[in-house]
Amino acid sequence: MKRSGFNRRSFIRNTATAAAGMLIVPSISHGSIGAPFISRNMKPRIRFSVIGINHGHINSQVETVIEGGGEFVSFYAKEPDLSAAFAKRFPQAKVARSIEEILNDKSIHLVVSAAIANERAPLGIEVMRHGKDFLADKPGVLTLDQLKDVRKVQKETKRIYAILYGERLENKATIRAGELVKQGAIGKVIQTIGLGPHRLNAPSRPAWFFNKKQYGGILVDIATHQCDQFLFFTGSTKAEVVASQVGNFNHPQYEMEDFGDAMVKGDGGTGYMRVDWFTPDSLKTFGDTRLTVLGTEGYIEVRKNVDLAGREGGNHVFLVNNKETRYVESNDVELTYGRLLVDDIINRTETAMTQEHCFLAAELAIRAQDQAKNITSK
Amino acid sequence: MKRSGFNRRSFIRNTATAAAGMLIVPSISHGSIGAPFISRNMKPRIRFSVIGINHGHINSQVETVIEGGGEFVSFYAKEPDLSAAFAKRFPQAKVARSIEEILNDKSIHLVVSAAIANERAPLGIEVMRHGKDFLADKPGVLTLDQLKDVRKVQKETKRIYAILYGERLENKATIRAGELVKQGAIGKVIQTIGLGPHRLNAPSRPAWFFNKKQYGGILVDIATHQCDQFLFFTGSTKAEVVASQVGNFNHPQYEMEDFGDAMVKGDGGTGYMRVDWFTPDSLKTFGDTRLTVLGTEGYIEVRKNVDLAGREGGNHVFLVNNKETRYVESNDVELTYGRLLVDDIINRTETAMTQEHCFLAAELAIRAQDQAKNITSK
Repeated sequence: MKRSGFNRRSFIRNTATAAAGMLIVPSISHGSIGAPFISRNMKPRIRFSVIGINHGHINSQVETVIEGGGEFVSFYAKEPDLSAAFAKRFPQAKVARSIEEILNDKSIHLVVSAAIANERAPLGIEVMRHGKDFLADKPGVLTLDQLKDVRKVQKETKRIYAILYGERLENKATIRAGELVKQGAIGKVIQTIGLGPHRLNAPSRPAWFFNKKQYGGILVDIATHQCDQFLFFTGSTKAEVVASQVGNFNHPQYEMEDFGDAMVKGDGGTGYMRVDWFTPDSLKTFGDTRLTVLGTEGYIEVRKNVDLAGREGGNHVFLVNNKETRYVESNDVELTYGRLLVDDIINRTETAMTQEHCFLAAELAIRAQDQAKNITSK
Repeated sequence: MKRSGFNRRSFIRNTATAAAGMLIVPSISHGSIGAPFISRNMKPRIRFSVIGINHGHINSQVETVIEGGGEFVSFYAKEPDLSAAFAKRFPQAKVARSIEEILNDKSIHLVVSAAIANERAPLGIEVMRHGKDFLADKPGVLTLDQLKDVRKVQKETKRIYAILYGERLENKATIRAGELVKQGAIGKVIQTIGLGPHRLNAPSRPAWFFNKKQYGGILVDIATHQCDQFLFFTGSTKAEVVASQVGNFNHPQYEMEDFGDAMVKGDGGTGYMRVDWFTPDSLKTFGDTRLTVLGTEGYIEVRKNVDLAGREGGNHVFLVNNKETRYVESNDVELTYGRLLVDDIINRTETAMTQEHCFLAAELAIRAQDQAKNITSK
């Protein structure tokens, strides 16, 4: 396969202004507080395109990259209706006539995608082979076969294959929890429990959402978030599935799994996760997503989206250790993922997320899915 | 082995007054609201003794039975220091000279025990063989061998072998949650998640607490509560362990497990439980015990002992279904276990808890313990 001439040298030439601008940004570790923020008004540092807009997550993906210093140049979607709405939302982006037009545009550094889930890995491989970095909506990889190919091409091309695990990277409370853990507030982490309930709203879902080959199964689809958080909070670089289950308990009319859970174990701790499509109508958010991090000296509970019959809004962090039991503010947390990803694209670094972590989270979710016992009640 | 002459006929004769009193008490199903309450001042309906006071739970066990209509007659403990303190707390009870004195006292209907955990089953067997009913602190049975013997003798003698699973039976919020589920507030139950953290306070613990043969392991010891709740809320009458783990992550100086978790599955739903000895010093309770019940039409979260940085006290119930998201009061719940147990002792019924449920909860915890993978980090 032909490789594009995209390399670090041409990259720097293409983004000279941006690269200069970058120099004023100090190296900032993940999730630090009070770091300088590159506003929308700064000169863009990279140019990016979008291919595939089949999930609404694409909007926040694009916004994250723009916030981080990306110029949204062009997009392609094969669905005219989706394309029209998207063009309206992002008028600055040109509508490309084909995927190839974007792949062959040497000025583009990054391709962002929320294509149908099983099409993301093959697309990402093409993107990397064209010398560009790739940012996929989660799940970014659906099967072990896909993962093998993606890992191989990523290694060959040295491009970035990023997956936006938004339940951590775009959630201020979870980032604050990460800071607390890093500061030693709860000692050494022993276990994480992640709950990821979601509202189904079946009529609003496209057909591919109910086709397992296309969406991957509930653990691959949703629990990849919990796998990411488990690895991150326990600091695990190796992990295995202890046990996992999936089932369809209340939606026999659909080809779907409405429940899934898994016990996992890594070299830094253990974890449990449960995901489901049972968010009740009365809840004011898509899901009462929770994360509990148990440490040797305390624990943290994150109520990401809602504090039931309690405080307004989302981003609730509760810290309990030997010294104090307290509510921790997190609305002041800066979401740095977009900026760090753009830094990484420019500097060929891994500050937003290591490639290995990104793949391992996907792998763990896929293995949980593959090994899951179906417990659908008869 | 010699059986005592204790039977329903002599029982009724011995408790004639109480039995008459009983007639004014309507049959009340578990956990119903606003039922009449038999006060401490009513004439006692049964006579009971205590054998073994090695765990402080004995105090609430005794109080529960007194509240339910029991007259606390006598007790025996082999430890003079424990005995002296207990006699001070319950001056109405005579100090027996031996276990046999209590076993051979035909006026005694029930023996209550919080002996060292591995001594409860053998004691309970003797108690049943002497024609009396038995109420053990949890864990009421430590091994499958013990359980086999207890089941056999219970069947032969038709005595009650009760275990006080206090995290449900003595927790108003959990009882309220049970009522809500029974009323159909969350549809059909799919899963329970039970978290049972405890404060260690190692210096306050007796030696047997650190001897696995005597305390049984963390899943047998603590998670028996979560097994009871899993079976109760899912309505399961059969259950198996999917996976389980135990570990000692931060107390290498003790022979103990400070962490344990398990995935279980029953014929009425699935469950996850985690127990640990990591309650931090700052928390105003022994543990932030939680129960989450997921149903097809909603979910309930019970924060049993504390609402972190929130409402005062314990017994917090949160209900989320398609109609509403609300905090549910539970401080008005009547704790009926003691009364129902005394009813059962008199009427030879199973209204407080079925014998099979009692044993199955113990069995599930024992199987989880036996199958647990030790994940103590090196």
